[in-house]
Amino acid sequence: MPTALVRRMLAEFLGTGLLVAAVVGSGIAAQRLSTDHGVQLFENAIVTALALPVLILVFGPVSGGHFNPVVSLADWALGRRRREGLSGRELAPYVIAQVSGAIPGALLANAMFDQHGVLSVHRRSGWHLWLGEVVATAGLLLVIFALARTGNTRQTPWAVGAYIGAAYWFTSSTSFANPAVAIGRMFSNSFAGIAPGSVPGFIGAQLAGGVVGLGLMVALYPRVSEVAGDVVVPHEAVGSA
Amino acid sequence: MPTALVRRMLAEFLGTGLLVAAVVGSGIAAQRLSTDHGVQLFENAIVTALALPVLILVFGPVSGGHFNPVVSLADWALGRRRREGLSGRELAPYVIAQVSGAIPGALLANAMFDQHGVLSVHRRSGWHLWLGEVVATAGLLLVIFALARTGNTRQTPWAVGAYIGAAYWFTSSTSFANPAVAIGRMFSNSFAGIAPGSVPGFIGAQLAGGVVGLGLMVALYPRVSEVAGDVVVPHEAVGSA
Amino acid sequence: MPTALVRRMLAEFLGTGLLVAAVVGSGIAAQRLSTDHGVQLFENAIVTALALPVLILVFGPVSGGHFNPVVSLADWALGRRRREGLSGRELAPYVIAQVSGAIPGALLANAMFDQHGVLSVHRRSGWHLWLGEVVATAGLLLVIFALARTGNTRQTPWAVGAYIGAAYWFTSSTSFANPAVAIGRMFSNSFAGIAPGSVPGFIGAQLAGGVVGLGLMVALYPRVSEVAGDVVVPHEAVGSA
Amino acid sequence: MPTALVRRMLAEFLGTGLLVAAVVGSGIAAQRLSTDHGVQLFENAIVTALALPVLILVFGPVSGGHFNPVVSLADWALGRRRREGLSGRELAPYVIAQVSGAIPGALLANAMFDQHGVLSVHRRSGWHLWLGEVVATAGLLLVIFALARTGNTRQTPWAVGAYIGAAYWFTSSTSFANPAVAIGRMFSNSFAGIAPGSVPGFIGAQLAGGVVGLGLMVALYPRVSEVAGDVVVPHEAVGSA
Repeated sequence: MPTALVRRMLAEFLGTGLLVAAVVGSGIAAQRLSTDHGVQLFENAIVTALALPVLILVFGPVSGGHFNPVVSLADWALGRRRREGLSGRELAPYVIAQVSGAIPGALLANAMFDQHGVLSVHRRSGWHLWLGEVVATAGLLLVIFALARTGNTRQTPWAVGAYIGAAYWFTSSTSFANPAVAIGRMFSNSFAGIAPGSVPGFIGAQLAGGVVGLGLMVALYPRVSEVAGDVVVPHEAVGSA
Repeated sequence: MPTALVRRMLAEFLGTGLLVAAVVGSGIAAQRLSTDHGVQLFENAIVTALALPVLILVFGPVSGGHFNPVVSLADWALGRRRREGLSGRELAPYVIAQVSGAIPGALLANAMFDQHGVLSVHRRSGWHLWLGEVVATAGLLLVIFALARTGNTRQTPWAVGAYIGAAYWFTSSTSFANPAVAIGRMFSNSFAGIAPGSVPGFIGAQLAGGVVGLGLMVALYPRVSEVAGDVVVPHEAVGSA
Repeated sequence: MPTALVRRMLAEFLGTGLLVAAVVGSGIAAQRLSTDHGVQLFENAIVTALALPVLILVFGPVSGGHFNPVVSLADWALGRRRREGLSGRELAPYVIAQVSGAIPGALLANAMFDQHGVLSVHRRSGWHLWLGEVVATAGLLLVIFALARTGNTRQTPWAVGAYIGAAYWFTSSTSFANPAVAIGRMFSNSFAGIAPGSVPGFIGAQLAGGVVGLGLMVALYPRVSEVAGDVVVPHEAVGSA
Repeated sequence: MPTALVRRMLAEFLGTGLLVAAVVGSGIAAQRLSTDHGVQLFENAIVTALALPVLILVFGPVSGGHFNPVVSLADWALGRRRREGLSGRELAPYVIAQVSGAIPGALLANAMFDQHGVLSVHRRSGWHLWLGEVVATAGLLLVIFALARTGNTRQTPWAVGAYIGAAYWFTSSTSFANPAVAIGRMFSNSFAGIAPGSVPGFIGAQLAGGVVGLGLMVALYPRVSEVAGDVVVPHEAVGSA
């Protein structure tokens, strides 16, 4: 495996892990410190909106800052004809790095907060929640690919953070929108957790949302496939140097 | 109808719809999760301030990102002599797309939150609220046209979001400032809703605010009509390609 | 009086007035909707942090976006030797526009919220509050002049908003930092108001803070006087055209 | 001592002092005004996230805006082979300026809020808190050095502010991540304080976090040492002129 790919996997591993640590850690803190459920979710959402852009700025120049199997999959699907974006050989390493980063990310949050009891019992299922995940994931892809297509990638980190912070609230599912993060959040016995049995439904909805998002993207921006290499942000040039 | 205009209508339809979904969805979540009315409004306002810039960044390069009949009307009125901005033939399709996006946007939020009972009974009328809408809409036009006129359109999405987030609070009407959004919000049985009977008064005040805003704009920036084509953000060049 | 100066005075009048309307309006809303005093102040502070950058972006290209007699005075004082910045003849019109905008700004907020009883009875005095105003005003000048001096004026609107939002909290006086705003806030019978008898003390502290701020500025950036013409943001080139 | 170094020390002294004043001042205000512990911490975190970028923008062009001995140490360590960044002779003056600024910064906050009783009795120790400080400090170095390495220093002030605001919540230690600030916060008898006996443990964890952060940085960006001169933001060119 070439050094550059190892470095990109390290970036995806760390980025996804620290994203989950930020979500779970702030979830634990919110639950311990605040009583109003809305205030707890607001604290959780704003912390994520602040942390996610920084993670994209730090790790994005190495790997693109996907941190999300749906994003990697969409990038590969869009770019494969023109051989732009993620290649078929890179897709699996990306997803493996993301998922294997998400789990220790949750455990790190548990350790920092001395939180015992690992597996979540927080059930999240039902058609309205899955609809929420479809909307959340479709929207996320629109944000990422539209900004790449319109040459706005300098604004992408902040736009993605703002989007996720808002989507915590305007979707009923609090917008996981990310299979790796859903898997990581199984390992948190807090209000940010998700029971293992609820994860497949969420991942299914996220994949469906990915298809919807790509469809809308192609309708709005027919030439989107040309910019698959710049998703989430332009990368490699610096990272491999 | 040319393909490019259809695509622009799609962008206005989706942008307005998702804006209403964000406002109504976060309104429902706030009402369910928080008890303090100020905290509810704050959650609603910040979510809107985060979501609106992202929607402008995503859909603006296609259609300009108006999402608002008053903005489209003002753009047409300002630019018609110089044949800049929205033409007379495009005005109606824009407004139709906006209004017909706003309604399913509210219904999508209701569906995501499994919210029953559609029509709002939340009455909003009185001179002080209408004054709030006049101020809110005049201010919105000042933000959009001043930034276009001074070549600051890269900051427009964030400025519009910040403005609306603040105007939720400093106007008594919580700053609808948008007839399409007012119509959409009739279909929400939450604190973000507006009773159908209160909508005409709001729309009248918004149109009056539009006139005030354009008047101030011309006083401050006499050459504003030259930039009608760049409202809310520059578009078409990318969208039609 | 030349047209350009009239237009600049209009920009200072509207900018200062809308700033006071945003502060007072959100103060009234916060007091009515929230019970926790910290939450009220937080709502008030964040709204100001969002509104102020937008006002600078809208009116700044015409007048510089001072909205504050201490800023105008400092700009004149720094630039007078090199004949940069505000001239002696422009200083009085700026201050008059600011003060005469602040008062109707407060009255507009009262009218929007149907708030009766105009004059504030909120006493604010004592050495520790005046120390707060000295720190707040000195810091504000450092932000404005340092960003002008280092060619960062594109970030000035957001930096000024962030600074004031933070200074609401880290100074004991909630950071008025502006004589015109202090005068305007006399006309608000809400927690954002200030009793007329407390205004002279605040203005004295603000002027002292202005001297401290300019002194620190010269120590850090000896060549600051060259950029007086770009305070708060570059202007006139567009506004007078 | 050359004038330029004195000016840089003044910038580090003022920047670190005002950072501590912002943290401690907003901590005192939060404790007095809000009852919910989460709301208090949120107010404290958002104020810091708003104030820190402004301080970097104001003082950074003179000194780099380190305000933190770990940052100065890391900059020296990374750059010493190539003679980039802070030289060995400059390291001690930087650290002295930072620590001697932090203490009066806390005292200034106490004075502004008329707060009596200076030394904190707030104990903070335990392996999970120290783990929090390791994570917080490692992350801070990643943010600063990755943005310098990828030519993104214009975004550094806002990214550092967003990071610290988030890290208040996702680390159990509320992310001091700064030995000078830890020393300053001993002098605050509020919830933002730290008992003197807990400071050595925190500083040890911060130094360990510095090593972890630099190690990850070198793994991700092998050529990072070339940009030590641009940490936190590019400086001197303006400051010394």
